[in-house]
Amino acid sequence: MFMHNEKLQYTVRVAESNPGLANLMLEQFGGPQGELAAAMRYFTQALAEDDPGRKDMLLDIATEELSHLEIIGTIVAMLNKGAKGRLAEAAEETAELYATITRGGNDSHVTEVLYGGGPALVNSGGVPWTAAYIDSIGDPTCDLRSNIAAEARAKIIYERLINVTTDAGVREALGFLMTREIAHQKSFEKALYSIQPNFPPGKLPGVPEYTDKYYDMSQGEVDRRGPWNKGKQWEYVSERKEQVAVDGGDGKASVKLPSAERGVVDRMKQRLQSLDGDPITGADLGAGPGAGSTTAEPTRVG
Amino acid sequence: MFMHNEKLQYTVRVAESNPGLANLMLEQFGGPQGELAAAMRYFTQALAEDDPGRKDMLLDIATEELSHLEIIGTIVAMLNKGAKGRLAEAAEETAELYATITRGGNDSHVTEVLYGGGPALVNSGGVPWTAAYIDSIGDPTCDLRSNIAAEARAKIIYERLINVTTDAGVREALGFLMTREIAHQKSFEKALYSIQPNFPPGKLPGVPEYTDKYYDMSQGEVDRRGPWNKGKQWEYVSERKEQVAVDGGDGKASVKLPSAERGVVDRMKQRLQSLDGDPITGADLGAGPGAGSTTAEPTRVG
Amino acid sequence: MFMHNEKLQYTVRVAESNPGLANLMLEQFGGPQGELAAAMRYFTQALAEDDPGRKDMLLDIATEELSHLEIIGTIVAMLNKGAKGRLAEAAEETAELYATITRGGNDSHVTEVLYGGGPALVNSGGVPWTAAYIDSIGDPTCDLRSNIAAEARAKIIYERLINVTTDAGVREALGFLMTREIAHQKSFEKALYSIQPNFPPGKLPGVPEYTDKYYDMSQGEVDRRGPWNKGKQWEYVSERKEQVAVDGGDGKASVKLPSAERGVVDRMKQRLQSLDGDPITGADLGAGPGAGSTTAEPTRVG
Amino acid sequence: MFMHNEKLQYTVRVAESNPGLANLMLEQFGGPQGELAAAMRYFTQALAEDDPGRKDMLLDIATEELSHLEIIGTIVAMLNKGAKGRLAEAAEETAELYATITRGGNDSHVTEVLYGGGPALVNSGGVPWTAAYIDSIGDPTCDLRSNIAAEARAKIIYERLINVTTDAGVREALGFLMTREIAHQKSFEKALYSIQPNFPPGKLPGVPEYTDKYYDMSQGEVDRRGPWNKGKQWEYVSERKEQVAVDGGDGKASVKLPSAERGVVDRMKQRLQSLDGDPITGADLGAGPGAGSTTAEPTRVG
Amino acid sequence: MFMHNEKLQYTVRVAESNPGLANLMLEQFGGPQGELAAAMRYFTQALAEDDPGRKDMLLDIATEELSHLEIIGTIVAMLNKGAKGRLAEAAEETAELYATITRGGNDSHVTEVLYGGGPALVNSGGVPWTAAYIDSIGDPTCDLRSNIAAEARAKIIYERLINVTTDAGVREALGFLMTREIAHQKSFEKALYSIQPNFPPGKLPGVPEYTDKYYDMSQGEVDRRGPWNKGKQWEYVSERKEQVAVDGGDGKASVKLPSAERGVVDRMKQRLQSLDGDPITGADLGAGPGAGSTTAEPTRVG
Amino acid sequence: MFMHNEKLQYTVRVAESNPGLANLMLEQFGGPQGELAAAMRYFTQALAEDDPGRKDMLLDIATEELSHLEIIGTIVAMLNKGAKGRLAEAAEETAELYATITRGGNDSHVTEVLYGGGPALVNSGGVPWTAAYIDSIGDPTCDLRSNIAAEARAKIIYERLINVTTDAGVREALGFLMTREIAHQKSFEKALYSIQPNFPPGKLPGVPEYTDKYYDMSQGEVDRRGPWNKGKQWEYVSERKEQVAVDGGDGKASVKLPSAERGVVDRMKQRLQSLDGDPITGADLGAGPGAGSTTAEPTRVG
Repeated sequence: MFMHNEKLQYTVRVAESNPGLANLMLEQFGGPQGELAAAMRYFTQALAEDDPGRKDMLLDIATEELSHLEIIGTIVAMLNKGAKGRLAEAAEETAELYATITRGGNDSHVTEVLYGGGPALVNSGGVPWTAAYIDSIGDPTCDLRSNIAAEARAKIIYERLINVTTDAGVREALGFLMTREIAHQKSFEKALYSIQPNFPPGKLPGVPEYTDKYYDMSQGEVDRRGPWNKGKQWEYVSERKEQVAVDGGDGKASVKLPSAERGVVDRMKQRLQSLDGDPITGADLGAGPGAGSTTAEPTRVG
Repeated sequence: MFMHNEKLQYTVRVAESNPGLANLMLEQFGGPQGELAAAMRYFTQALAEDDPGRKDMLLDIATEELSHLEIIGTIVAMLNKGAKGRLAEAAEETAELYATITRGGNDSHVTEVLYGGGPALVNSGGVPWTAAYIDSIGDPTCDLRSNIAAEARAKIIYERLINVTTDAGVREALGFLMTREIAHQKSFEKALYSIQPNFPPGKLPGVPEYTDKYYDMSQGEVDRRGPWNKGKQWEYVSERKEQVAVDGGDGKASVKLPSAERGVVDRMKQRLQSLDGDPITGADLGAGPGAGSTTAEPTRVG
Repeated sequence: MFMHNEKLQYTVRVAESNPGLANLMLEQFGGPQGELAAAMRYFTQALAEDDPGRKDMLLDIATEELSHLEIIGTIVAMLNKGAKGRLAEAAEETAELYATITRGGNDSHVTEVLYGGGPALVNSGGVPWTAAYIDSIGDPTCDLRSNIAAEARAKIIYERLINVTTDAGVREALGFLMTREIAHQKSFEKALYSIQPNFPPGKLPGVPEYTDKYYDMSQGEVDRRGPWNKGKQWEYVSERKEQVAVDGGDGKASVKLPSAERGVVDRMKQRLQSLDGDPITGADLGAGPGAGSTTAEPTRVG
Repeated sequence: MFMHNEKLQYTVRVAESNPGLANLMLEQFGGPQGELAAAMRYFTQALAEDDPGRKDMLLDIATEELSHLEIIGTIVAMLNKGAKGRLAEAAEETAELYATITRGGNDSHVTEVLYGGGPALVNSGGVPWTAAYIDSIGDPTCDLRSNIAAEARAKIIYERLINVTTDAGVREALGFLMTREIAHQKSFEKALYSIQPNFPPGKLPGVPEYTDKYYDMSQGEVDRRGPWNKGKQWEYVSERKEQVAVDGGDGKASVKLPSAERGVVDRMKQRLQSLDGDPITGADLGAGPGAGSTTAEPTRVG
Repeated sequence: MFMHNEKLQYTVRVAESNPGLANLMLEQFGGPQGELAAAMRYFTQALAEDDPGRKDMLLDIATEELSHLEIIGTIVAMLNKGAKGRLAEAAEETAELYATITRGGNDSHVTEVLYGGGPALVNSGGVPWTAAYIDSIGDPTCDLRSNIAAEARAKIIYERLINVTTDAGVREALGFLMTREIAHQKSFEKALYSIQPNFPPGKLPGVPEYTDKYYDMSQGEVDRRGPWNKGKQWEYVSERKEQVAVDGGDGKASVKLPSAERGVVDRMKQRLQSLDGDPITGADLGAGPGAGSTTAEPTRVG
Repeated sequence: MFMHNEKLQYTVRVAESNPGLANLMLEQFGGPQGELAAAMRYFTQALAEDDPGRKDMLLDIATEELSHLEIIGTIVAMLNKGAKGRLAEAAEETAELYATITRGGNDSHVTEVLYGGGPALVNSGGVPWTAAYIDSIGDPTCDLRSNIAAEARAKIIYERLINVTTDAGVREALGFLMTREIAHQKSFEKALYSIQPNFPPGKLPGVPEYTDKYYDMSQGEVDRRGPWNKGKQWEYVSERKEQVAVDGGDGKASVKLPSAERGVVDRMKQRLQSLDGDPITGADLGAGPGAGSTTAEPTRVG
C-alpha cells in the first residue's frame, strides 16, 4: 500500500516564472525517459516478482521514482504558476498573452492552452506518455538489464536539462534527481549479477554454429574491426555468399498447402497476375501533352 | 546504401497453414521486441555515430536485423498463405470462413480481415508498431546498454515462441533468430566495455551525498536486504524522517513571482476557493429517496 | 513524498490459475477507466492545485488509487502465476502450451508471450495505456466534473467485471475497489459544489442570444422533447433556416489577404482548377472491356 | 442520415493571414477537448441508446458539434490561406518562406510542411486525434456525466483561445462556439437528472463498510479537512494501520496452484534466485580506475 | 452546416444477436479503412479546398460517409443489443456471462466490458481510431490519388466482411456500403483527371537524369522484368557500382563546422572512443563457469 | 537478405550546422510521408506477394527507400552534428545553450534534449512514427493504388522542403530524393495497369442500382456539377427524400432478439428511462444566485 507525506523528498526552490523552461522539464515528467516511466517499469515488475528480495528492491525504487515524479512535476507547476494565473484571469492585453504563450518557441503553448499550466503527462514536445515506453517482459535477467539501461538514459537527460538551465534552485533539484539515477543503476547492476548465470538469458541455449559468428553486412573501402567482432571468440564472416542461406538450404520460403488451398491460391495468383506489355497508365493520362518520357507511346491516349 | 539478395538469410520451411500461429509470430515482426525495432534502433544510432568502428558495427547488425525481419515476415506469409487465398477467392461456405478466421482465438481475425493475411507491422495483439519502442538517446554508453537489454529481451520472446510452436521448420528458423540475438548482445557488450570509463554515463558526476544512499521506501514486517543495498558501498536509509526533504530544507515548493503575477494568482485562488459547509451535490440529487448516507441533509433538496 | 507498506490495502485471495480472467482484469490496471488513469488524473491535478484543502484531497485519493493499482495488478499476477511458470520453464508439451495461451480467446496470448504473465499497463485488448486518457485541463470546476465522471465510469467497469467473475476472492476484492469509486465520487461532488458559483465554468459569460437555444438538428417523424430542450428556459429552434448562419450573416467564410498573397492564391487556384468535360480516368483504363457504365466513351482508350 | 448545407452555422470573418494563430485553433479541431471529440462522443452514444428521447438529443447535439467542427476548421483554413498559397507556389525567397513557417514558434511548421496549410485532425502541438479521447462506456448515467465534464472542459479551452486572440471576427466566432458548450452542458445536466436514481451508477450497491470511509493517505503538519471528508456522512480514517488490509486479513496475496504448477513455479524461482554476496557488476567494470565508491572490492576485476 | 434525418440511408435488418460478428464490423466503424476515416479525409480536404466544384464534391461524399458510419455503427449496436442488456442487468449466471463475452475469440470481450456493447471507434482488434490514418496533405492531385486508393481499400474490406457474414440483412447492407465505395472511387478518378496536367504532382519538375532510371536493388538468380522497368522509357541500372553515389561524388557525408563546434565534436569523439583490446564484459560476468565461447579469457574474471 | 555498402546512394554535402532545418527534415525521416513509411509499405507488401515480378519490384523499391532513409537521416545528423557536440560537452554558457535549442521555434528542442541530436523516427513535430501510417491491405490492385498515392504525397513534401531550404547541398540531395518518388510512382502505375481488369478491385461486383448514383448531400444556393457527377454514366440524386432509406425500407434498424434477451433489454430500458419534468441539476446547484436563465425555477434550490 502506498502512503504520502506532504513534504517533498527534495525541497523545490524556483527563482522565477519561466513557462519555456517548464516545458523542457516535462521531458522527465511525461517523457519516455522520465519518472513515470521509471516508476511504472519497476512497479509492474515488482507485482510479478517471486523473489522477495528483488520484489522489495523494485518497490523501494518504484516508490522513490514516484516521489521524483512529484518533484519534477512540482518544478513544472512552479515555473508555470504565474502564466497559469495570467491566462485564467486574462489579466493582460490579449496580444501580450499570445506573445507570452508562444514566445518560448518550444511547445509551451500546448501546455498553457490545453493543460492550463499544469504538469501534463506529455514529453517536452507535447506527445502523451504511453506504456509503449515500458519494456518489461517478465524475465528478471532481461528486466534488470532494461532497468540498468533506463537509468543510464535518464541520467543523461537530466544532465542535458542541467546544461540548459540557469535557475539555481532548479539546477540543484535536477542534480539530486540525476544522482539518484546513478544510485539506482548501481542497485540494478548488483541485482543482475546476483543471479548466476544470467547470460544468455532464459533457458534455451543458442544454436552453436550461429552463436559466435559475426556477419559483416555493411562493407566499404576500409575493413574496420573491434572487440565486437575480433578475437578468438568470433568467427568473422564477410564473404557475401557465406552470409546468405546460412543453413545451407536454398534460401527460399515454402509451405505445404492442402490441395484445396493450393487451388484457391493459384486462382488468386492468376486473377491478379501482371501482364506483359506497356500499358497506358494514370500517370500517362495526367502527364499532359509532350510528356514524352513517361510512356513509350503517349499518343495512344485519345 | 542498402542492397538486397532474393535469397533469405535462413531458409524458411513451413509445414502447414496455421493462421493462429502466424499471428503469434507477428510479435517479433511488428512487436516492441521484434526485428523492426531492433533494426531501427541500431540504424538510427549508426547515422549519428562518429566513431567509425562502432558505426560500422551498428550498420552490420542493423542490416542483419532487417534480414531477420524478412525471415520472420516470410514465416507469417507462409503460415497465412492458404487462408489469404481462401478469403480473397471466397472459395468456401461463408460460415466456415467465419469460423476459420476467429478460431485461433488470438487476434488472427484482424490479420485476415484488415491485412488480408499479409504480415503487418503490428504485434500479436494487433497493436501497430510505434517508434516509441525505440529508446536511443544519442549517447553511446547509454545506447549500448539499451541495445544489450533489447537483445536480451528479444532472445526471451523467441524462446517463448519456440516453446509454443510445434512446426519443425518454424522452430528451426526461430532457433537461428534467437541465437543471433545472443551473438548481438555479446557484440554490444564488447562495444560498451571498450569505452572507458562508461559509468556513470555522461560527463557530470553525481552529487556525492546522494550517490551511495539506498532509501528503504517500502517497508514491512521483514527487512529484506541484498547486494543492491547491503555492503560497505551503501548507506541504507530506512528512517522515514531521513527520507523526506533530504536536502535539509522544508520539503516545500516555492517560486518568486513578480507582484503582478502574484496578484492574478491570488485572484484566481480566491475565485476558485473551496467554501466550508456541506453543500448539496449532484450525487445527492441523484441518490434517490432515502439515500441517507450520501449527504447530511438530503431533505434540503426541493 | 510517497512511501510504501508491503501489505496491500486489501487482501488478495485467488482461488486458482486463470489467465483468461487475468486478462479481463487488465481493463482496470492499464485500461482507460483503470486505476493508473485515476491515480495520474488526481496526482497531476494536485501538483498544480493552489487550494490547500483540495490539493490534500487530490493527493489522498491519488495515493489510494495507486494502492488500488497494486491490488488489481496483484490479482493479475496471481491469476497468471502458474501460466508464467509453465511458459518460462516450458514444463509441458509444446502443443499444450499453445493451447493454454490461446484458449481464453481474449488476448491472453499477448500477456503471456510478450509480457511473460506479468501485469502490463495495457487494457484487456492489449492496447498500451496512454496519457491521452487523462482529461485534466487545470481548471478545478472542470477537473472535478471530469473526476466525478471518471469515478462513475470506473464503478461500472468494476460492476461488469464482477458480473463475469466466479472466483469468490477476486469478486470480494473487486467489490471493495468498486465501492471506493462510489466514495471518491462523493468526495469530488462535495468539492465541486464547495466552489460557488461553478457554472458556467471559467470567467467569461456566454453570449446571451445563444445560451438558451436548443437546435433541433436531427429530425424525423416524431418530435421528441424532454427536459433537455423543453420548458421555459429553452428556446427550441427546429426551422432549418433558423439553424444556419445564426449570426445573421451570409454563412460564408472570408479572410482579407494582402495583394501579394491574393496573387499566389489565385495562381494556385488556376493551376489546380477542375476542367469541365468527361476525362478518361485510371478507373476507365482498369475497368476492362465492356465496362460501359464507368465512362461515357470507353472506346476512347486505345 | 446526415445532410449538409453549404452555409456555415456561423459566419466566419477573418481579418488577416495568421498561421501561428491558425495553429492554436487546431486545439479545438483535432485536440482532446475539440469538436471532433465532442461529435464522436455523442454520436457513438446515440447509436447504442435505447431511450428515444435521449437518442434524439444525442443526435441533435452530435450534429451541431459536426457543424462546429466545420466552423473551427474553416477558421484554420482562412488563417492559413495565404501561407498555403505561398508555400505551394513558392512565390518568395526561400529564406523568407523558412522564416514564415517557423516564426510562430508554435508548431505551425508542421501544419504547413506536412498538411499544406489545411486543417488537420491534430491538436495545437501536432499530436494526431485519437479515439482514446472518447470516454463513453455505454451506461447513460456515466456517459451523461462524461458529457457534462467534456462540455465544461471545452468551454474553458475556448475561453483561453479567446484570451489570446486579437482578431475580432475570430473572437466573435469563438464566443459563439464557447456559448454553445454552456447550452449543451445544461442539456446533459437535465438529461442526467431525468434518470432517477442515478447515483451510484449501475445496479450493484457499494459494500456498506467502505462506502462512507475517507482514507487520509497524504499526511503533513496540518490536518486539512473539507466537505469531501468532513461531516456526519464521512468516517475519517487517518491511522496508518487502519488504512492497510482494511478487510482484516493479512494484506498479502495468495493463489492456490495445482501441484504441477507449484513445481514449475518453484523451479523458476530457484533458477532465478538472487545470491547473496557482493558481485562484480558491469558498473564496476565501467567505473574506471579509482572508482572506489561503486563496489567494495573493485580490485577483484582482473 | 450539417443536419440529420432520423432515418438511415439504408435500412438495417439484423437477424439475431451476434457479438462476435459485431466485433468484426467495427473494422469499418473505427478501423483504418472505415467510414470515419473516409468522412474525415474528405471533410478536412473540403475545408481547405478553393475550387468550388471540388469542395462541393468533397462535402457531398464526406456527408454520405458520415451516413455510412451511422449505418455500420447501427449494425454493431443491433448485433450487440442483447449482449449489452445481459451484461448490464446481469440476468444470467456469472459463468455463462464470462463464456458469452469471450466465446467469439475475436476481441468482443473488450467491446462488452469496456464499451458496454456500444459501437466504439476502434478497429476489430480494439485499437482506437487515430488521425494518423488520414493522409491528406493539402494538394488536390495528391489527395485525390489518396482518396482513390482509400476507396479501393474500403471496397475490399467490405468484400471480406461479406465473405464471412451469414446474416442476410447484414450482408445486404454491407453490399450497399461496398457499392458506394466503387461509386466514390469513380468520382475521385474523374476529379483527378479533370486537373491537367496532374503528373508529376506539384510544380517542381524532376531532375532529368534520375527520372527514368530503375535501380535493380534486389537481385537473384533470375532477372525478372516487367512494364515497371522495361521499355524505352526506362533506364535499367543493375550494376551495383552504378547504384551507389549516383551523383558521382564519394558517397560520403560532410558538414562544414565552425572551429568552435569542431572542437567540441572532437572532444566528444575522444571521450567516447572505442579502445582496442578484448574487454571483460557484463556478459562474461554473467556467463557462468565454463562459458568458454563468450570471451577469449574468461579466467580473467575473479 | 539485405546487405549494406558504406557509401550513400547520394553524396551528402551540408554547408553548416542548422538544428532548426534538421528538425524540418525529420518530416521525411520519421513522418507519415517519409522514407521509413515508404520502405515498410513496399517491404511488407513484397513478403506476401505471390507474383514474382511484382515481388521483385517491391523489393527493389523498398531497398531503395531504405537507402533514401539513410540519406535523409544523414542530412539530419550533419545539420545537428555541432549542436550535438555542444550539448554533450556543455562547452558553452548554459543560457546560450538554452537559446540554441529553443531558437528554431520548431520543435528542435525535443530532438536535442531527448534524442541528443541524432535522427529520431519522429516527424517534424516530434510525433513518433507509427505503423498506422501504412495502409497496405494485401490486395495488389489496392496496394498499388496506395503506393501511387504515397509516392505523389512524398514528392510534394520534398518539394515543400526544397522551397524552405537555402543550403545548396541539402537542396541538391532533396532534389534527387524528390525525383525518385516520381520514378517510383511511374513504376507503380505501370504495375497497376498490368493487372487487367483492376477496377473495381476485388471479385464482388457492385450492386447495380447503387453503382452509378451520385448523392448530392451538400446543397447550397448554386448547383455545382463536374465530371464526378455529370454525364451519362451518372444518375444525380438531389431530392432529399430520395437520398434516405434508398433501399425502399423504413430507414430504421431492427434486430430479432430471443425473448430472454428482449426481457433484459426491456428491464434495462425501464431502469434507465428519462422521466419527464424539469429536474434540478448540478448546473442549477452551481449557477449561483440569480442565475435565472439556467433553470425554470431556481428558487427550488435550497
